Amino acid sequence: MLERMRHASPLVQCITNFVAMNYAANVLLAAGASPAMVHAPEEAGEFARLADALTVNIGTLSTDWLEGMLAAARAANEAGKPWVLDPVAHFATGFRRRAVQQLLALQPGIIRGNASEIMALAGVASAGRGVDAGDSVQQAEAAATRLAQSTGAVVAVTGAVDFVTDGSNAARIHGGSALMPRVTAMGCALTCLMGAFAAAIPENLFLATVSALACFGAAGAQAEPAADGPGSFAWRFVDALAALDAAALAAQVEQISV
Amino acid sequence: MLERMRHASPLVQCITNFVAMNYAANVLLAAGASPAMVHAPEEAGEFARLADALTVNIGTLSTDWLEGMLAAARAANEAGKPWVLDPVAHFATGFRRRAVQQLLALQPGIIRGNASEIMALAGVASAGRGVDAGDSVQQAEAAATRLAQSTGAVVAVTGAVDFVTDGSNAARIHGGSALMPRVTAMGCALTCLMGAFAAAIPENLFLATVSALACFGAAGAQAEPAADGPGSFAWRFVDALAALDAAALAAQVEQISV
Amino acid sequence: MLERMRHASPLVQCITNFVAMNYAANVLLAAGASPAMVHAPEEAGEFARLADALTVNIGTLSTDWLEGMLAAARAANEAGKPWVLDPVAHFATGFRRRAVQQLLALQPGIIRGNASEIMALAGVASAGRGVDAGDSVQQAEAAATRLAQSTGAVVAVTGAVDFVTDGSNAARIHGGSALMPRVTAMGCALTCLMGAFAAAIPENLFLATVSALACFGAAGAQAEPAADGPGSFAWRFVDALAALDAAALAAQVEQISV
Repeated sequence: MLERMRHASPLVQCITNFVAMNYAANVLLAAGASPAMVHAPEEAGEFARLADALTVNIGTLSTDWLEGMLAAARAANEAGKPWVLDPVAHFATGFRRRAVQQLLALQPGIIRGNASEIMALAGVASAGRGVDAGDSVQQAEAAATRLAQSTGAVVAVTGAVDFVTDGSNAARIHGGSALMPRVTAMGCALTCLMGAFAAAIPENLFLATVSALACFGAAGAQAEPAADGPGSFAWRFVDALAALDAAALAAQVEQISV
Repeated sequence: MLERMRHASPLVQCITNFVAMNYAANVLLAAGASPAMVHAPEEAGEFARLADALTVNIGTLSTDWLEGMLAAARAANEAGKPWVLDPVAHFATGFRRRAVQQLLALQPGIIRGNASEIMALAGVASAGRGVDAGDSVQQAEAAATRLAQSTGAVVAVTGAVDFVTDGSNAARIHGGSALMPRVTAMGCALTCLMGAFAAAIPENLFLATVSALACFGAAGAQAEPAADGPGSFAWRFVDALAALDAAALAAQVEQISV
Repeated sequence: MLERMRHASPLVQCITNFVAMNYAANVLLAAGASPAMVHAPEEAGEFARLADALTVNIGTLSTDWLEGMLAAARAANEAGKPWVLDPVAHFATGFRRRAVQQLLALQPGIIRGNASEIMALAGVASAGRGVDAGDSVQQAEAAATRLAQSTGAVVAVTGAVDFVTDGSNAARIHGGSALMPRVTAMGCALTCLMGAFAAAIPENLFLATVSALACFGAAGAQAEPAADGPGSFAWRFVDALAALDAAALAAQVEQISV
């Protein structure tokens, strides 16, 4: 799947937060996709018709940007392009809670969050407070399955071991590094990479999501040994992603039943 | 104090500029805090009540963001949470001069700036023009002391040797590296780290400020020898911060009298 | 010219996109200039009168920012300060197409783009779609020359070998690295560096543009051998720029006739 994505070099419209923009663009370029950070309401919808996929992340939301996100998601739907939702800390404020409901109503093909975000989205009590998870992935698996079944989206819960499900199929993805939560915007960049795989494999968003997670798991595991801390891990991860051998991905993935 | 901050892992709401957001978040994660970049007027005040401390930096100010900053500072005050002001280049335009007066009126617990910024804030003629200081820290010490006495804030002037005072106590912090002014957003990230220490030691903002400065002094000194230039210094500094031994901090601090 | 720019350490007002801000600021600091990212309509014009040069990049455009760009360009013109235009993906949406026409009417001294951007600006059919070029520099040379002649600006087309012309003089700049298009914001940072050289050599914007391109060509070639991928290339490039020997620049430049 990695070779197919690299060969397609899909144009991915990333509406992501200010913290993540640079790192996410570098992650997509390293992986072989073509990122475009286009979010303004004046053009987000028009651009979504040109792009091969869309990703929407509410990390640094504002009213203007929400308008751009909604316009882009509607345009993606109309044009039959897949789109991915990353509901960052959606439980933290009323503004985020309302925004995420509007976005969910536009039926994202993939939803990615940490355990606290996915649990709160499924209506389960969570320990989330800021942008970091207060719950384990395992605690969120049942909530993720219900969320996938009720929304029709592929749902990915990321953490030490990732969990992904479309409501009937499920997988756990291993690998990665304990340094990943110490580097900001890794999860946001992963959401963007899911957009790249969704563009390349639109007929199978479960496989697209698993592929993006496996890339992160493999690149994270490869970057860690030579890293002296989160600062060096960040760029070593980008190097590992650019050098990633497609054959390394399958080893990260454990197919399970739900 | 470093161990106390790491153990608390405080949630720090950082309203900082577009240039600094990614680096500041990585600095806080490396140091052991949990950063959240939340600034929109739609939610900044609500979030400030959840967070353990707030930092406000006017580097890339706009009318909307100023509204978010003021709402967050008011909410932090009401909730008894400490907040830190970083008046970036506040002397450069009328818009900034007015904004900083509104923010000062909300009584930040800590103010951090370079020599030109602190001198201008104390009403002393300075040589500042853009975001880089045109004056030395030593030239700004008297102005910093007066500013601390008139505002009740702890005032930190950062440069080759940092100066910090609450109007009666003062210290100089040594260490750091000549490469630090060659890396953008180091000062902005330091302001955010002061927020993390203020959250952990709210009863002693002078000590919180000194602790953050000592972390930067020690990590900067440790990162420099292996750095080949500002590019490698930036990530080596993050690695050094993550590996920092609390015992290394005291050596950076020189207690002085004002 | 590099020594002259470093000695002047010009204050460059960079209105650039959210993806590029941090990297562009670090590139300017490494090269020896003093960047200031000031874009809000509330102050962009006022600041442009203080700064030594202005650069405008429409990468993440919005209505507010366009207002700031236009105010800054007008102020730069009135104050006799040079300004540089980077029309990122201006062909992608109606909003961008209209914005770039308004900016062109304010007569930038330098225009930098990839081949697709420059061809589209000259009214030639191009293969551009997102932010990456779909055409080669060589295909864009004639369009660049016409654009320079019709606008009076120095026009630079960047790619594997760069082309720059003022309509009567022209040069190609060699060097660089195949990793450069794999790192986001390299072109945006280059536009900002052109602003730094334009501030230092306002009487010869052709030479200023060639100098900035030669810095990128030399630093890119020096950074590549030790880089393990785009992640390590990004910071090695900054280190190389900081260490750049002015004597290395001339070797990158091939004077040609148009």
